Amino acid sequence: MIDRYSRPDMVNIWSDQTKFRIWYEIEAFACEAQAKIGVIPKATVKSIWSLKDHIFDSEKINLIEKTTKHDVIAFLTYLANFIGDDSRFIHQGMTSSDILDTCFNIQLVRASDILIKDIDELLEALKAKAFEHKETVCVGRSHGIHAEPITFGLKMAQAYAEMDRNKTRLIDAKKEIAVGAISGAVGTYANIEPDVETYVCKALGLESETISTQIIPRDRHAMFFATLGVIGSSIDRIATEIRHLQRTEVLEVEEFFAKGQKGSSAMPHKRNPVLTENLSGLSRLVRMSVIPAMENVSLWHERDISHSSVERNIAPDTTITLDFALNRLTGVIKNLVIYPENMNKNLNKFNGLIHSQRVLLALTQKGVRREDAYEIVQSNAMKVWNEGVDFYNQLKKDPRVVKALNDNELRANFDMSYHLKHVDTIFGKVFS
Amino acid sequence: MIDRYSRPDMVNIWSDQTKFRIWYEIEAFACEAQAKIGVIPKATVKSIWSLKDHIFDSEKINLIEKTTKHDVIAFLTYLANFIGDDSRFIHQGMTSSDILDTCFNIQLVRASDILIKDIDELLEALKAKAFEHKETVCVGRSHGIHAEPITFGLKMAQAYAEMDRNKTRLIDAKKEIAVGAISGAVGTYANIEPDVETYVCKALGLESETISTQIIPRDRHAMFFATLGVIGSSIDRIATEIRHLQRTEVLEVEEFFAKGQKGSSAMPHKRNPVLTENLSGLSRLVRMSVIPAMENVSLWHERDISHSSVERNIAPDTTITLDFALNRLTGVIKNLVIYPENMNKNLNKFNGLIHSQRVLLALTQKGVRREDAYEIVQSNAMKVWNEGVDFYNQLKKDPRVVKALNDNELRANFDMSYHLKHVDTIFGKVFS
Amino acid sequence: MIDRYSRPDMVNIWSDQTKFRIWYEIEAFACEAQAKIGVIPKATVKSIWSLKDHIFDSEKINLIEKTTKHDVIAFLTYLANFIGDDSRFIHQGMTSSDILDTCFNIQLVRASDILIKDIDELLEALKAKAFEHKETVCVGRSHGIHAEPITFGLKMAQAYAEMDRNKTRLIDAKKEIAVGAISGAVGTYANIEPDVETYVCKALGLESETISTQIIPRDRHAMFFATLGVIGSSIDRIATEIRHLQRTEVLEVEEFFAKGQKGSSAMPHKRNPVLTENLSGLSRLVRMSVIPAMENVSLWHERDISHSSVERNIAPDTTITLDFALNRLTGVIKNLVIYPENMNKNLNKFNGLIHSQRVLLALTQKGVRREDAYEIVQSNAMKVWNEGVDFYNQLKKDPRVVKALNDNELRANFDMSYHLKHVDTIFGKVFS
Amino acid sequence: MIDRYSRPDMVNIWSDQTKFRIWYEIEAFACEAQAKIGVIPKATVKSIWSLKDHIFDSEKINLIEKTTKHDVIAFLTYLANFIGDDSRFIHQGMTSSDILDTCFNIQLVRASDILIKDIDELLEALKAKAFEHKETVCVGRSHGIHAEPITFGLKMAQAYAEMDRNKTRLIDAKKEIAVGAISGAVGTYANIEPDVETYVCKALGLESETISTQIIPRDRHAMFFATLGVIGSSIDRIATEIRHLQRTEVLEVEEFFAKGQKGSSAMPHKRNPVLTENLSGLSRLVRMSVIPAMENVSLWHERDISHSSVERNIAPDTTITLDFALNRLTGVIKNLVIYPENMNKNLNKFNGLIHSQRVLLALTQKGVRREDAYEIVQSNAMKVWNEGVDFYNQLKKDPRVVKALNDNELRANFDMSYHLKHVDTIFGKVFS
Repeated sequence: MIDRYSRPDMVNIWSDQTKFRIWYEIEAFACEAQAKIGVIPKATVKSIWSLKDHIFDSEKINLIEKTTKHDVIAFLTYLANFIGDDSRFIHQGMTSSDILDTCFNIQLVRASDILIKDIDELLEALKAKAFEHKETVCVGRSHGIHAEPITFGLKMAQAYAEMDRNKTRLIDAKKEIAVGAISGAVGTYANIEPDVETYVCKALGLESETISTQIIPRDRHAMFFATLGVIGSSIDRIATEIRHLQRTEVLEVEEFFAKGQKGSSAMPHKRNPVLTENLSGLSRLVRMSVIPAMENVSLWHERDISHSSVERNIAPDTTITLDFALNRLTGVIKNLVIYPENMNKNLNKFNGLIHSQRVLLALTQKGVRREDAYEIVQSNAMKVWNEGVDFYNQLKKDPRVVKALNDNELRANFDMSYHLKHVDTIFGKVFS
Repeated sequence: MIDRYSRPDMVNIWSDQTKFRIWYEIEAFACEAQAKIGVIPKATVKSIWSLKDHIFDSEKINLIEKTTKHDVIAFLTYLANFIGDDSRFIHQGMTSSDILDTCFNIQLVRASDILIKDIDELLEALKAKAFEHKETVCVGRSHGIHAEPITFGLKMAQAYAEMDRNKTRLIDAKKEIAVGAISGAVGTYANIEPDVETYVCKALGLESETISTQIIPRDRHAMFFATLGVIGSSIDRIATEIRHLQRTEVLEVEEFFAKGQKGSSAMPHKRNPVLTENLSGLSRLVRMSVIPAMENVSLWHERDISHSSVERNIAPDTTITLDFALNRLTGVIKNLVIYPENMNKNLNKFNGLIHSQRVLLALTQKGVRREDAYEIVQSNAMKVWNEGVDFYNQLKKDPRVVKALNDNELRANFDMSYHLKHVDTIFGKVFS
Repeated sequence: MIDRYSRPDMVNIWSDQTKFRIWYEIEAFACEAQAKIGVIPKATVKSIWSLKDHIFDSEKINLIEKTTKHDVIAFLTYLANFIGDDSRFIHQGMTSSDILDTCFNIQLVRASDILIKDIDELLEALKAKAFEHKETVCVGRSHGIHAEPITFGLKMAQAYAEMDRNKTRLIDAKKEIAVGAISGAVGTYANIEPDVETYVCKALGLESETISTQIIPRDRHAMFFATLGVIGSSIDRIATEIRHLQRTEVLEVEEFFAKGQKGSSAMPHKRNPVLTENLSGLSRLVRMSVIPAMENVSLWHERDISHSSVERNIAPDTTITLDFALNRLTGVIKNLVIYPENMNKNLNKFNGLIHSQRVLLALTQKGVRREDAYEIVQSNAMKVWNEGVDFYNQLKKDPRVVKALNDNELRANFDMSYHLKHVDTIFGKVFS
Repeated sequence: MIDRYSRPDMVNIWSDQTKFRIWYEIEAFACEAQAKIGVIPKATVKSIWSLKDHIFDSEKINLIEKTTKHDVIAFLTYLANFIGDDSRFIHQGMTSSDILDTCFNIQLVRASDILIKDIDELLEALKAKAFEHKETVCVGRSHGIHAEPITFGLKMAQAYAEMDRNKTRLIDAKKEIAVGAISGAVGTYANIEPDVETYVCKALGLESETISTQIIPRDRHAMFFATLGVIGSSIDRIATEIRHLQRTEVLEVEEFFAKGQKGSSAMPHKRNPVLTENLSGLSRLVRMSVIPAMENVSLWHERDISHSSVERNIAPDTTITLDFALNRLTGVIKNLVIYPENMNKNLNKFNGLIHSQRVLLALTQKGVRREDAYEIVQSNAMKVWNEGVDFYNQLKKDPRVVKALNDNELRANFDMSYHLKHVDTIFGKVFS
């Protein structure tokens, strides 16, 4: 975790405090369930819930761990200090992983909830900008080369649709890890009734794991982190779009530049797209957890603990980074400075060249063979490209064009609104 | 693609023949739709469908590409040779990506269908082995160390549940890429009506893309390949389990060893788990496509073509490898040789040590503090471990044990059936 | 391997024909060594070398493997058909891996030699372009934003220096895998004298492995593929640079566009940087082999075979792709069309803004506090940025500037040659 | 960074305190160089060095950054508070990256020095164990299956040789990043003489970058992190070996188990290889930085800042994790408990089967065709495998064996020392 790329709510999910609190709740609900079926005395339930408002002393627990070299045992030892005799009924029949894995998944569920909210806010920002610029014409580019006109609103709508898919994926990913397990040493419920698991999971808003082997299987977490990797990649796409559009030669949009901000220590004229460049970097960080999460799937037999150190790192780091990145991107979109006049200037840079396809189609519709029409348009286009002449005027000089199209027919192909006629249809598909 | 790790049906999906056939169908259905709305003559539809049974000459098309340096134009040129004048109406208003991306997704859909069938067959094999060995007791291991008894059927049931999740994921992943787009040069439908897209997609069993930008957005494909990566990782888990169980010292299962097979050119006594080792390797190959598929998301503006070479490689390679791996794993499971007697021998290797938890619980239930009970059991267990003595006998010599438990109470903890009492419950959860 | 992204010399290295030929040579040299120390009859050496010009029938050998399920045994069986009785001395004391691993490394050495040659050709192309455009001024950009003037030759020189480092790395990587091993079943030389290994390796131009465990340790190969990944990343850097420079709004360079080439099936005006976009994609493919190569390191005990399927894929695919990519990049550089007039136009787009640092320094040298000078220059620069006015004229209107600098002193900061004074020094460092 | 997997010396390298200290030194040496060539007053040098023992107030600097949104400017502002008027000469002609990149590389160099020392300590531990157990016979395993005898010392020697290669690689990797650059806004030395760079780099123990583009090219760092990834993979290999050997059924070695340690909260009998399992996990973390480091290479034009967030994470995290892992592994090796009697027991588990190759060779040397000899040995071996009979006795009953070998000749193949005759030779190669 890097402080400067983190937000407190997500950071809190991964604090020792939160973790011990969740451990405590799992143990307490397990006691409830165990007492209900008569395995442990009802008094124990009261004893353990008496600590309901206890602030766990993380330092003390971590200190105990130095001796026990086992985190859950350290926690239980700490609890025993407060609960006394009844403490012997706590954790009965359970194994550490019942606590650790169920807690870990609760943390991931909470993290997912924040991330879903983040995406919702981003969607809102994208939607606002999409509608605001639904008709703001700019050039569409393939291969970085001018193609045909689109609108800036369409760019935002595309980003919206992609992020909307990501929301669906994230909700699915949350379901993957919204499961708990209280199944004992090797998952056989030998020393603890399946009902305890059912009870505890329900109390904590989780499904019960179908079948666990001491631990909750890690294909779930692999799928979870893979989904975050896809979301990170989408962030990179949007960030890259903005970085391109802010280039000096393009300058169709700019990140908001605060008063007092300095773009460069050496060059006072600079205003750099540093937020979106940062987002490109953060997306690499989000993506890098995917492979280790997948490598974690293949644990040995009923479990080994190699996944643990990986998850201690990637779970906080990746969710914190993604939360920060989504939030940063929302801010970038909201505050984005847009220059429609530059969009228009760029659009016309090549003197009508962007209408080459329409001319091609007009020629074919007049009976020119496609191959011939292509050659006619391409040869004229290359002159525009190379010599900077006007495309329409150039075409008018070509007898092959004149033979097929009269002036009105030719001129009709240079109408910008032609390209925008289905914008509403598309917006309908995206925002319905 | 490596020949020895491929199966013909999946290979065929990625042949030039299949690709050109799909291109042709997309063009033909587009002509139908265009004729229906009066954009092109109805006669063209007849012309193009006259090639319904045409066998495309891939070599000839690829040769034309050497000149045009553009694959779709080469294909259209080839078509024109057969269709003549009407050919000028084919592809009208479309851009190459309309064909390429829609075709690519059809190929991925077909690949998904094969993979889903593969998983179904694997599930069947796992289920059969799970029920066959529902009661075959073996030791559960955490950290590679004996823990408590489970059954071999439970191992198979765990694999089943994991693969069943993978099936659901794959069905979702298929939906991700089961979309087509016919939206023209920059996705604005400027030169082609949205209805054409709707018509063609429906005819081909696809959804229409919500919003495309010349191309279908690559977050869909990133999600698709990420899902294959998870499935590959699950294969690795099952393969690794078998590799462990076949180790000379464990020898609880063995891959089927054919007559005439040679385990080693130098050591005639060897029977190696080479199929599952191979599966571990193949899973690395499946996984390696995930990151490039994610890197492909961030294309520039409305598209660049950097994803293309990546997909030409990872799409065939990954689906072919995964198809092969799933099928190989099914074969391994079906033919797996299982040694229940060795499972039993291993289970008893440490003279009852696997019952340590039960003794611990029995002591605490008799009022011994958990911490004390732990120490009592651990100290006796270590003697068993180090000196090979019998655990039960050892415990009987410990006055602290004797004080808490009479002989019957102690002996009761060494009952194997105790651990199996919930196997049916678990099977109920997995196979219902 | 994708046909369209491969070149024949590299493809040949990975043919069955080449492989069987190398296997044969290893066996033959091993026979020589064995005969020399009297382990096998000298006649066997003659027998085996009698096949010196034999063309191996790959199909037949692969057919035998279907029965033996073991490739080396299949090969030995094939050899036996030609050599008869003496064949029993061939492969004596060796294990399959002695052949497989030594052969694999010979193939990698040969692949390295091609790649080193590729880099040499690329270096030559870069050097030529660097010197040709040593003084061709263009704007340097940080964050995609105009910074200060550089030359196009410096860009090429940077690429040269980076590729030169890659050459050194590749030579080191080649050394990593230029080792062979003939050490028997578990690497103890129990059945074969260490001298045989020494002899064979020397004959084949390899070092002997320090210590092998049936196989040559895979940390060597991990390092090899990691190095290829770095080279691929450098290719991506250069390709991305060209893609940026070819953007419609920038258009400082263009990939060569052949007669008859079509940029787009729909838009005849397009000239797209498709070669460099393709290189960006290929670099992802090269990079994707790095992680599986590293996962291959951790084989079980003295070996398992999980690395094999991985290497069957990544070794040919990665070397073939990298060879193709280096060669394609060399072609792109050689044929690159450069537009110095556009470079100049872009450089002046913001009316002198790129000289902001010099003005800043001039002010501080006249005693203005750095913080104040920064504010003065930035506020004027922002006006240029936003209103398109001339930077020099703008500064002249600012009394704070006028107070510190007279007109000559101010004007001096707008001299382009100032920025180029150390180009020769840099070229000296790069090309010496 | 995860506290529990970190050591203070490495952590300190990445503290703000260390960073600001290095920034200060770079600025101070740059002032020295600038004064020497007369660009700034000599008094400034005295001024800046007056802060030689200053403790930088990180919090205050970070606070200033909140306003400037630029870290280096914040630092310079902080410095100005102490230095006053002379501060205007500090940083003159430099760009932030001159400071940031040079500092970053100094931190990586220091990190490398710690890692090299770590490897040295690991090498020492491996060497000690190798010599201690040079003759401790154990079974060599391929595919997890018994192959032929080796010694435990050979396993340690293999690990030594691999780590020794890693040391060489790390020394090379250190050289890759042991460069500094003071070349100004776009690397042209327009506002700062190349001599300043030379002077500062020399003072700080670095080479000067051949050619920089505001920043030091990231292919260097890609190579650095790739090398760490290889080292991590080697750690995984050694850790995996120990995990295998500690399995209950094998139990040839055990991690040291401290007094008071608890293997499992539920099962008091457990002693788990948790340190080496942890190392397998840590190696995944080390490896995961490789791809983002490679993705960082392709920055836009003369630089973008997307690499920065990546490096802020992976540079501390990866070096800290690797330092911890190497140190943990050294501890594991030093304290490893070795059970030669179990090695011997395992070796004899299959009644002499491990000698199958020798019998095969003995038969072929007596003139039996290799194919026939193989069949003879294999068929007898399978009986041993399946029925648990003694291999030697089994062979004696086979008339085909008896015909070729008399009892002495047969028995000679079961001599263990035969396999160890070249151990000294191998040790000579590894440790010379």
